[in-house]
Amino acid sequence: MLTFFNDSHHAHAPVFEFFRGERVPCFETPARAEFVKARLIERGHVLCKPEVDSRAVLAKVHASRYLSFLEHAWRDWTALEEGNGQRQPFPSVWPVRSLRSDVEPINFTARLGLYSMDNGSPLSAGTWQAAKAGADAAASAAAFLTAGERAAFCCSRPPGHHAGPDFMGGYCFLNNAAVAAQALRDGGATRVAVLDVDYHHGNGTQSIFYHRADVFFASLHGDPMTEYPFYLGHTDEIGEGEGEGFNLNLPLAAGCTVPQWFEALETACLRINGYRADALVVSLGLDTFAEDPISKFSLQPDDFVRLGARLGKLGLPTVFVLEGGYAAAALGTNAVNVIEGFEGR
Amino acid sequence: MLTFFNDSHHAHAPVFEFFRGERVPCFETPARAEFVKARLIERGHVLCKPEVDSRAVLAKVHASRYLSFLEHAWRDWTALEEGNGQRQPFPSVWPVRSLRSDVEPINFTARLGLYSMDNGSPLSAGTWQAAKAGADAAASAAAFLTAGERAAFCCSRPPGHHAGPDFMGGYCFLNNAAVAAQALRDGGATRVAVLDVDYHHGNGTQSIFYHRADVFFASLHGDPMTEYPFYLGHTDEIGEGEGEGFNLNLPLAAGCTVPQWFEALETACLRINGYRADALVVSLGLDTFAEDPISKFSLQPDDFVRLGARLGKLGLPTVFVLEGGYAAAALGTNAVNVIEGFEGR
Repeated sequence: MLTFFNDSHHAHAPVFEFFRGERVPCFETPARAEFVKARLIERGHVLCKPEVDSRAVLAKVHASRYLSFLEHAWRDWTALEEGNGQRQPFPSVWPVRSLRSDVEPINFTARLGLYSMDNGSPLSAGTWQAAKAGADAAASAAAFLTAGERAAFCCSRPPGHHAGPDFMGGYCFLNNAAVAAQALRDGGATRVAVLDVDYHHGNGTQSIFYHRADVFFASLHGDPMTEYPFYLGHTDEIGEGEGEGFNLNLPLAAGCTVPQWFEALETACLRINGYRADALVVSLGLDTFAEDPISKFSLQPDDFVRLGARLGKLGLPTVFVLEGGYAAAALGTNAVNVIEGFEGR
Repeated sequence: MLTFFNDSHHAHAPVFEFFRGERVPCFETPARAEFVKARLIERGHVLCKPEVDSRAVLAKVHASRYLSFLEHAWRDWTALEEGNGQRQPFPSVWPVRSLRSDVEPINFTARLGLYSMDNGSPLSAGTWQAAKAGADAAASAAAFLTAGERAAFCCSRPPGHHAGPDFMGGYCFLNNAAVAAQALRDGGATRVAVLDVDYHHGNGTQSIFYHRADVFFASLHGDPMTEYPFYLGHTDEIGEGEGEGFNLNLPLAAGCTVPQWFEALETACLRINGYRADALVVSLGLDTFAEDPISKFSLQPDDFVRLGARLGKLGLPTVFVLEGGYAAAALGTNAVNVIEGFEGR
């Protein structure tokens, strides 16, 4: 499968994150994309460089003040104090209920908190560069489909599906799946389905399209009662306004079996059939893998072939977008299994 | 001045907090209240034990699910995993815009995030015990006024004014000033004014009374554009619904002069006169002190006498509630200067 590979992903390489109150090395590492790249090459898939500028599409799925903050965040942070270039910024306050989100403070940490949903999305010098190139890869994949091709893989990091209309979260900064879906719409698709198979609910993608009927969002994921992102991903979230009926959440208990997972996948696929989508975007998280260090499903490498095959049966032009998956060394095999299952190879 | 001193405050003694992404010793320490106690005794003020149970009042100013969470938080945390008794829990995700606050997750960290506005309010084994006794002290002070006395000092920690209807924040868990104001209302006062002179805006108190006309909230504080809590405390927040016109914010630039500060105090006092309050609650933060390590105003010890004298001139039954102030050793002198200035002593 033609793969748009984001060579700039290396530019996003924060050193540590906070996990249960402790500083730990980042789970979301440059090695992740490199393992996938190596496997793609080993299996003869063609990699190419994203050439489409996603800026116009980004402006349709993210708030302009958020994009502006993100683009200049590292510059602003390092300008604050000597030595900040060797430090990672973290937010410390968040505008929850009864607090305001409409006024952007001057204080950098407060701006970072305004545009974050957690303290689990560390910035580094090249975060914007990497994330923007990732969005370009998603837009490039969409353009490739618009030109008449059947499928493309957007192999990039950082991931995107937790990034909301105006905030980062869960290692995500720009919502690549949303960019792909919007770019497909802009390219002429009347209805686009986004299927999120990451272990974690794609809260960002859901929120971006929650009031729209032209993008149907479906997600199977660990139940937010116990799993990140905790505050979205329940079954009663069905969309609002024009978007009512165009959002489907299939939360699954942590520890659910492989047959249960495929049953939920089947439910999502049937709904996508019913939606009569013109194109499909798959948020391809591989953290459903049994050996993932921070997730609790139990898919095996062969199950990813089966997943790909089922998605292929939908018969839709499809963009795959890499999301989570933290058993880095297995990521290549599992990701490539999906796209080869899709191709029936 | 009769002082209701919370002897249980020691029970709340977390070891460290996060400050600019680093673990640092807590600023809000048991020593703070002890310095004030020592100075009160030195100056011949009478200390007594709070005897009023604040539970019924707490239920009027905080959401029941939040109170229930807070009461059992340490038990829940330590039950999770062996060794948690030696660890401090911290939230990692917050339900900002587009995320849900209506469903309480099962996951402990997610519950902690649901009920927090920051990661700057570390819990310890006796947090509930200390905070509840602090609320009891506030209710006791209010009862003392209801019985006909002129003034009382609620000397307690942790502080309270950042604690919102259903969240902790800024070292605060239960809103003692709100408890005092509500208890005064319940005791027969028709109109209660709350004046917050802490360096940081009393976002929690504002939010608790934002839709009510029976409690007028006024605050002078560091401009939230640059100072904590960042997302509330602007001049255009004047109250809503029945509360419209009963909220006054006087943000001051970090680094403002002492005359500028007293000018804002005068504005607040004139508004309180105009409100024809039956009683006054003063959120007494002492972090306006020039030597405070985390704040940027420049009051000197004598200025606190002047503050007390101006408040005394309002001629109202008054409860003083201790809030912030992190130049611990000076806290006793500065706090006692206010109450002695009030007494004209």
